[in-house]
Amino acid sequence: MTENLRELFHLQEGLVFLNHGSFGACPKPVFKTYQDWQLTLENQPVAFLDQERGLLDNMKAARVAVAKELGANEQDIVGVENATAGLNAIARSQELKPGDEILTSNHEYNALENTWRFVADRTGAKIVVADIAIPLRSEDQFTSSILKKMTENTKVLFLSHITSPTSLVFPIENVVKEARNRGIITVIDGAHAPGLIHLKLNELNADFYSGNCHKWMMAPKGSAFLWAHKDVQHTLEPTVISHGWVPQNGNKKQLGAFGDSRFIDCFEVQGTRDPAAWFTVPAAIEFKQLHNWEKVKRRSSELAMATAVTISKLTKIPLFASHEFLAPQLVSIPLPDCDVDELKNRLLSEYDIEIPVFRWADICIVRLSIQGYNTQQEADALVNAISEILGLR
Amino acid sequence: MTENLRELFHLQEGLVFLNHGSFGACPKPVFKTYQDWQLTLENQPVAFLDQERGLLDNMKAARVAVAKELGANEQDIVGVENATAGLNAIARSQELKPGDEILTSNHEYNALENTWRFVADRTGAKIVVADIAIPLRSEDQFTSSILKKMTENTKVLFLSHITSPTSLVFPIENVVKEARNRGIITVIDGAHAPGLIHLKLNELNADFYSGNCHKWMMAPKGSAFLWAHKDVQHTLEPTVISHGWVPQNGNKKQLGAFGDSRFIDCFEVQGTRDPAAWFTVPAAIEFKQLHNWEKVKRRSSELAMATAVTISKLTKIPLFASHEFLAPQLVSIPLPDCDVDELKNRLLSEYDIEIPVFRWADICIVRLSIQGYNTQQEADALVNAISEILGLR
Repeated sequence: MTENLRELFHLQEGLVFLNHGSFGACPKPVFKTYQDWQLTLENQPVAFLDQERGLLDNMKAARVAVAKELGANEQDIVGVENATAGLNAIARSQELKPGDEILTSNHEYNALENTWRFVADRTGAKIVVADIAIPLRSEDQFTSSILKKMTENTKVLFLSHITSPTSLVFPIENVVKEARNRGIITVIDGAHAPGLIHLKLNELNADFYSGNCHKWMMAPKGSAFLWAHKDVQHTLEPTVISHGWVPQNGNKKQLGAFGDSRFIDCFEVQGTRDPAAWFTVPAAIEFKQLHNWEKVKRRSSELAMATAVTISKLTKIPLFASHEFLAPQLVSIPLPDCDVDELKNRLLSEYDIEIPVFRWADICIVRLSIQGYNTQQEADALVNAISEILGLR
Repeated sequence: MTENLRELFHLQEGLVFLNHGSFGACPKPVFKTYQDWQLTLENQPVAFLDQERGLLDNMKAARVAVAKELGANEQDIVGVENATAGLNAIARSQELKPGDEILTSNHEYNALENTWRFVADRTGAKIVVADIAIPLRSEDQFTSSILKKMTENTKVLFLSHITSPTSLVFPIENVVKEARNRGIITVIDGAHAPGLIHLKLNELNADFYSGNCHKWMMAPKGSAFLWAHKDVQHTLEPTVISHGWVPQNGNKKQLGAFGDSRFIDCFEVQGTRDPAAWFTVPAAIEFKQLHNWEKVKRRSSELAMATAVTISKLTKIPLFASHEFLAPQLVSIPLPDCDVDELKNRLLSEYDIEIPVFRWADICIVRLSIQGYNTQQEADALVNAISEILGLR
């Protein structure tokens, strides 16, 4: 690589960090912007945190930048702490009753499975799980698996855009469209999507979408967004009711307590918190442009895929999908049955490789992330280590 | 003062900062600890944020320090973003039904008034407001004002420990005791209390208490705690359902998904966020010990009180309570009727004084905070500026 990107990150020397996918890693210049925002705040907390002074302008600047990057209108986006928090606001705002069905897949993230279980317990609604069989080979296979379970009782369709355990890019466009035709609310967990795949929120035209900025958008931890279609914004309640809140009056154009839309005021005018992570998202977007990140992503994707294919050949276990449905830069690679904790611990203690190894649907999986700071050498080290520990070839 | 405390803060040079009470101000060494935690996180995000590695130990260290400082057991405390967030979890977890009453006072904080209104709207419960007349002259006056409105329908008693608009220390001990005798759940908004007054949570023996660490405990923004009596912890749901959550089974000893109590796991094992502010609370507590903060507080309280008395003499308007019920270091001073926005703006633009001026119950109020970094000269500047602008003697 022409630029030593590793030097642009704070990551521990000597560590083979192949787990960008869990928490991300924030580039040094972006992280400096983050901590500088915090110092600016401490310099004059009132000027910074008072709604009538700087706060809302800075909030809006981040909204505008995220909206531009993700093909959305800034009025449809608010900052939240992480995708789980955004999706909680959405899930807990759905008015459901006994008999109603929440349709989802068997590839969802534990925290969100918990959230929907909580909502189902409270409302009497039922969770219906569509089995998305692996390997995933076609859009039709995906669409028909979902439609088969869609009934006239389905009120909510909840799907990951990129699945956490299996790293699949679910081809959700058709089922989102079909749900809209049937009056079913679509809620998309985009935790891993922004910055990883081509994401255009207006085009997707779901009802609700929440995604993280701290993973593949290269922003600091604590930055994420909630997107809501203008037709359903008025049905949302934030998880924390605070200054910006006013009761719903059913009017889509309802204003909040601070003169912006109710949706924006409800979520943005909260109690005292450190908003620096959200304010830093524009700097993260700039960083990517400055460092030719499209090219970095392409190289990283190729390396991730080549490594996954190599391991798959060694194990003789096929990957979870044909290439078009495998996420770029993030590949969940199935392994022969093994002690996942032991493998994970040995990779770290004997090879200095940080990578998640876990079991999903009784399949052992290593989830490889390749980011700009990773090298061919590191990928080779992983292949070698897994081969040695599992006695492949 | 023997030590120039102002130099220990990041506050803007030349600014007369008399508003510690809104957002606090974090001392430089504490703030450095905060940002160092963030850098440690970026150095190895997985080691830091994985529940099975460092995360829960560091969470617990903060819990232990806060518990020790505030006379509580560490098992009864969790970290939250701010008091409003903690109180939202409490309020939204109360199982109320039409006819139930939530008893509160007329001195409460807007964000929490909104929160209880939201809860009342959802459940059909009714909000009953006890009028605490000013001036507050005796504990009996307070107690009887509350008891007068306590009925057999009262299910929740919600009170500030220190009121936000009027800066009164409500003598809540007796009504908390009486509520417990009657089986009424007590929820105390301690946003301003920790670090400002002598607060011993076990002794107070309420059901729920939430307070900020970023104000008078000198910790960074984003650090606050929720305390719950062990008998009612099992009734709480976090505002964001995440990894640590398991459904309630009604058992007080129920474990969470990570092996600690359900209460602790539910709140502590969340999606990706920057936990550095909470981790820094122990450093804030140490800072206060190192800098002889009891003495600093005494001096600050005397200066705040003397300044309030001086202004009261000039305006000939009595303060809101006899001294025992006025918060130390934080005094809401009533003013003659005036344009509060204009006064606030002129204090800032013409005198470089940052201080809140607002209207409550149709009374104009300036709320003075004195912290260790403030001086007699600054207090005098405030008296002089208010006199000039309002044409007082």
